[in-house]
Amino acid sequence: MKTAVIGSTGYGGVELIRLLAAHPHFELTKLISTSKTGEALDQAFPHLRHLGYAFSGLNVDELAEQVDLVFFATPAGVSGKYAPALAERNVIVVDLSGDFRLGEPEVYEAWYGKEAPPRTWMEKTVYGLSEWFGDRLPEAQLIANPGCYPTASLLALLPLLKEKVIDPAMVIIDGKSGVSGAGRKPGLATLFCEVNENVRPYKADRHQHTPEMERFAEICADSPVRIRFVPHLVPMNRGILITLYATNLNNYTNRDLFDLYCETYQNRPFVRVLKEGWPETKAVQGSNFCDIGFHVDERTGSIVVMAAIDNLMKGAAGQAVQNANLRCGWPEESGLTGIPLYP
Amino acid sequence: MKTAVIGSTGYGGVELIRLLAAHPHFELTKLISTSKTGEALDQAFPHLRHLGYAFSGLNVDELAEQVDLVFFATPAGVSGKYAPALAERNVIVVDLSGDFRLGEPEVYEAWYGKEAPPRTWMEKTVYGLSEWFGDRLPEAQLIANPGCYPTASLLALLPLLKEKVIDPAMVIIDGKSGVSGAGRKPGLATLFCEVNENVRPYKADRHQHTPEMERFAEICADSPVRIRFVPHLVPMNRGILITLYATNLNNYTNRDLFDLYCETYQNRPFVRVLKEGWPETKAVQGSNFCDIGFHVDERTGSIVVMAAIDNLMKGAAGQAVQNANLRCGWPEESGLTGIPLYP
Amino acid sequence: MKTAVIGSTGYGGVELIRLLAAHPHFELTKLISTSKTGEALDQAFPHLRHLGYAFSGLNVDELAEQVDLVFFATPAGVSGKYAPALAERNVIVVDLSGDFRLGEPEVYEAWYGKEAPPRTWMEKTVYGLSEWFGDRLPEAQLIANPGCYPTASLLALLPLLKEKVIDPAMVIIDGKSGVSGAGRKPGLATLFCEVNENVRPYKADRHQHTPEMERFAEICADSPVRIRFVPHLVPMNRGILITLYATNLNNYTNRDLFDLYCETYQNRPFVRVLKEGWPETKAVQGSNFCDIGFHVDERTGSIVVMAAIDNLMKGAAGQAVQNANLRCGWPEESGLTGIPLYP
Amino acid sequence: MKTAVIGSTGYGGVELIRLLAAHPHFELTKLISTSKTGEALDQAFPHLRHLGYAFSGLNVDELAEQVDLVFFATPAGVSGKYAPALAERNVIVVDLSGDFRLGEPEVYEAWYGKEAPPRTWMEKTVYGLSEWFGDRLPEAQLIANPGCYPTASLLALLPLLKEKVIDPAMVIIDGKSGVSGAGRKPGLATLFCEVNENVRPYKADRHQHTPEMERFAEICADSPVRIRFVPHLVPMNRGILITLYATNLNNYTNRDLFDLYCETYQNRPFVRVLKEGWPETKAVQGSNFCDIGFHVDERTGSIVVMAAIDNLMKGAAGQAVQNANLRCGWPEESGLTGIPLYP
Repeated sequence: MKTAVIGSTGYGGVELIRLLAAHPHFELTKLISTSKTGEALDQAFPHLRHLGYAFSGLNVDELAEQVDLVFFATPAGVSGKYAPALAERNVIVVDLSGDFRLGEPEVYEAWYGKEAPPRTWMEKTVYGLSEWFGDRLPEAQLIANPGCYPTASLLALLPLLKEKVIDPAMVIIDGKSGVSGAGRKPGLATLFCEVNENVRPYKADRHQHTPEMERFAEICADSPVRIRFVPHLVPMNRGILITLYATNLNNYTNRDLFDLYCETYQNRPFVRVLKEGWPETKAVQGSNFCDIGFHVDERTGSIVVMAAIDNLMKGAAGQAVQNANLRCGWPEESGLTGIPLYP
Repeated sequence: MKTAVIGSTGYGGVELIRLLAAHPHFELTKLISTSKTGEALDQAFPHLRHLGYAFSGLNVDELAEQVDLVFFATPAGVSGKYAPALAERNVIVVDLSGDFRLGEPEVYEAWYGKEAPPRTWMEKTVYGLSEWFGDRLPEAQLIANPGCYPTASLLALLPLLKEKVIDPAMVIIDGKSGVSGAGRKPGLATLFCEVNENVRPYKADRHQHTPEMERFAEICADSPVRIRFVPHLVPMNRGILITLYATNLNNYTNRDLFDLYCETYQNRPFVRVLKEGWPETKAVQGSNFCDIGFHVDERTGSIVVMAAIDNLMKGAAGQAVQNANLRCGWPEESGLTGIPLYP
Repeated sequence: MKTAVIGSTGYGGVELIRLLAAHPHFELTKLISTSKTGEALDQAFPHLRHLGYAFSGLNVDELAEQVDLVFFATPAGVSGKYAPALAERNVIVVDLSGDFRLGEPEVYEAWYGKEAPPRTWMEKTVYGLSEWFGDRLPEAQLIANPGCYPTASLLALLPLLKEKVIDPAMVIIDGKSGVSGAGRKPGLATLFCEVNENVRPYKADRHQHTPEMERFAEICADSPVRIRFVPHLVPMNRGILITLYATNLNNYTNRDLFDLYCETYQNRPFVRVLKEGWPETKAVQGSNFCDIGFHVDERTGSIVVMAAIDNLMKGAAGQAVQNANLRCGWPEESGLTGIPLYP
Repeated sequence: MKTAVIGSTGYGGVELIRLLAAHPHFELTKLISTSKTGEALDQAFPHLRHLGYAFSGLNVDELAEQVDLVFFATPAGVSGKYAPALAERNVIVVDLSGDFRLGEPEVYEAWYGKEAPPRTWMEKTVYGLSEWFGDRLPEAQLIANPGCYPTASLLALLPLLKEKVIDPAMVIIDGKSGVSGAGRKPGLATLFCEVNENVRPYKADRHQHTPEMERFAEICADSPVRIRFVPHLVPMNRGILITLYATNLNNYTNRDLFDLYCETYQNRPFVRVLKEGWPETKAVQGSNFCDIGFHVDERTGSIVVMAAIDNLMKGAAGQAVQNANLRCGWPEESGLTGIPLYP
């Protein structure tokens, strides 16, 4: 199958190139970048100098004839404009941006501050949290790939809500992310000297991943859910760790939680449930794994769950390929069997 | 005044040397290290090669005649053994370890798993959170310098509890710390390659700073307080950021909180209250400041407060010197006026 | 083909596991560790928790019956003891340590300060710098995998010496290495806080990779070669960059050098010659590539060449697999096609 | 004495603020920034929120009446325009940029690619390598503060050249620098993810610090000197380590070198000569020290010397204050007694 990556000069786009160039079933046919049209790939990315690609501009009609599947790895506002036209021309679209995740234009506009994509497409988009909504993927024309924080958070949270283990009225999620999540666009806030030797909260008052988490949490909880999500920037390239705090409603034990997570994710190749100990981002670096650990604290009646992912893999490009695999009927792990890089 | 540092080869001890060697009122008379007795300081610490010190062994009787004030920068279990003997010989003791912080031997033994110091000394020790218990310092013979996490956490938390702003039944504190907090003893867990490019929780089930926080929280709240504290290791040398989550009981606004913190810490030179934005560890690096920021979230009825300190300064050696200043009647800032190192 | 890794708990050993677990032709049959015998792999290495291995002890006779090929990823002095016995039992041995690289027991003992392996085996060992001595591999029973610095240095240097471009009487090689090269054994010098925010020379007076470089440099130069090699530790996990300085004997130009390197390494899949610009370690991270760049400086009559590798890949486990591939007649790239991880 | 900092929003400028705000003899009267005129200091630099400054615009006439001494911490091309006018109005100028270091307009234009300052001022500028040209400072109206690399390099090199220890025809200097040396202007090359986990050469073909080193090397050698200087970027905030390679002309021994360096720098408070071992950047972090170590290698007839400085201190702001002290007759160490921050 022929694929293209639109927005192939950001960190998410380059990670897609890494995965697709080695994928057994997808062929990476076009790299599209409006800022680098015409340039050779290795000018911008010397680590890929053994590959022979060059960047093209975006022409929707042409593209629809050249490829079967398109990945958007673009900033908010881009796929909303171009993805519907491609989907209508029967191209499968996997959108790594947030444009189609929130279901309703009003919610999108309130949290993203941008004009929303057409309502019809927002409504019929399938949300690509593979382990939870994967059964809807085979018919999807447009797949909204989850955000990095929602991926880790929902994989940890949804089993608890579905089984009514915790109080949905207040879930706290404290996020820690590596810097590649902030993108590759130069800015003072992501200069080495500003980030190195620093832990810094950002968008801590209000982050646009909050409504995304709440939307799908409520679908699984079948009740209102309130999440207080606070992200922090940590001096490392890759990785997200979320720490989730909730109230233990029914005296669940550690053993109960272990059984619940194991049952939920049995046969899912990318979720690893820890019997003891805690996840750490290094253990998933460069891979599509999500590691989950937890602890019931009797002293405070609380449950703590942590999930670790590589934000560019399970949090972006890896899950996008996983979704494309599921959409096209390939084995879920195709092209995603890389073992974590350590150290 | 003549001072000694016991345990002067750990990161906290070396930070004390940095501060005391430049202090206008204290003279650093003895560096005591049982592992390096007889060695010159610059063998172990080339950055101090312009100073002329050498390490001595510990002899309590001799020491009591040579110095007026002793800092213990030792692992748990050491000051519990030696500090009472020094205090009884009229030496002022500032203990940076946890041995005397918990008030009761039973609590100490339950959380530290070591034999407790004598009950009488545990009871009459003054807890050196300078901004809250500083008025008891001038008469103190033995000062328990607070732990790094409790310092940041209590400075953020106590105003809320004292004014009954939040529900004391459940306070969540998510801690992020640089690696120097783990000490200078070689171990796999703190090797560069294990920590770098990693966020890793540790002692997340149960950390001995929890009862320390709860003890002094309850004193100020005048009611039971339950804290769920979860620390994380972050790849940087120095710095602690704590993120505190609590339920807003009385519809406090951002403005109310700003006024509360400003009033609480007016005239306290080391607490900087942020009107907007959030603290970050880089802004306090190398200094004795504690930066505090906060946000009231109406959507979830919660309050988030963050505090940032340098764990070796306000979280250890800096506050120890601050307490020694207050004990001895010197200006609180003596020897602590260094401006944060940036970047 | 069945393989074992001896010394599988160091960084080099774990990298071998990563490569062999995904190799199309080798089966990883045994993980041998004397310190962890009986333990499950995921206890020590949580990132590998989806694999099912456990560690065994070392029994040479048993091992010789169970596997066809053994990788030694052990400290100096181990393979010298055990490799000959395995080789004599017709097991192919790839030794990642320095025990068999120097050809003569006297030289080994002078530079390593340990008892040398038997002279006969030292003499008939093949040095596995794949691009230069690969034609001798198919018959090798014992392969000495090159050191990390010599790999990068010789790939840069040998073309210059062979063509008599530079003065062999004085070659300067300034090395910069990530910390994984120092191994996984806990020690003060590799603690995070000691290495982070630091550049530190080590073994700068005398490093045991010097005679290894000179030995093979002299073979290719067919004349005496003197190398002054000075390594530095840099705060990163992986990567080596060497900067080589030499005197331009015959007015070679940049164009001449480009042609020389391209010709030397044509058809070698892992050496990438840069027409302009310089290599950087990030461009090879996690891959088996060696990137080479150079510059002729007319002002000073000097030539500068740089080479970048991932010290655990082309500098250790990657090249070991490359050598095993060449030894066994598999395509050179088998199991080594991973694209560099960026960022 | 009243001072101003022009260009006070770069890393060098902020370091000057840190030093001057605590200086016993200089009063920091004005912070000048054309990009932030009118803004409060703590908007841009939260770590300085306890200081009350705001940024002003630049008006040469006004400034000349308000202050006695001005520091330029501006990019190339700015002080060349404004410094002469200030100097002519009897303001003492310390210029941290390269505009006045090269003595001749032609050389400046060849290496900097910008229009040179007036020849008369270039010629009568005093080069502020304090330990070598400090005796000319008391009369200087315009002081060219040395570049970061030349400071470390010349302190290591000049004793060797003056005593004719080494061959001046070829000196190799391999530089490693932290990222703050690249400035605070956002750009792709200094983004965290691009620099972290990377060693990258830059301006390796031709760096403008080369002629600065050669100019002052030749003055001290009293003969032509050729230097091949190659800088590398290392993932840390602060610090420069230079490794110098040269040919031992007269069989100097380690002992001879130790005596030479000790004699040269006796009574100079900021140069620390190591009897054994090597310097590392961490040992000088945040301080004005330059640590020097060396080794004579008999095998190759070469001498290696290393020097470590904090690039923002002895390599920029620290030396600028040292020069201002010497110019004004204050003790050389005034305001510079801070002990290195460790770790």
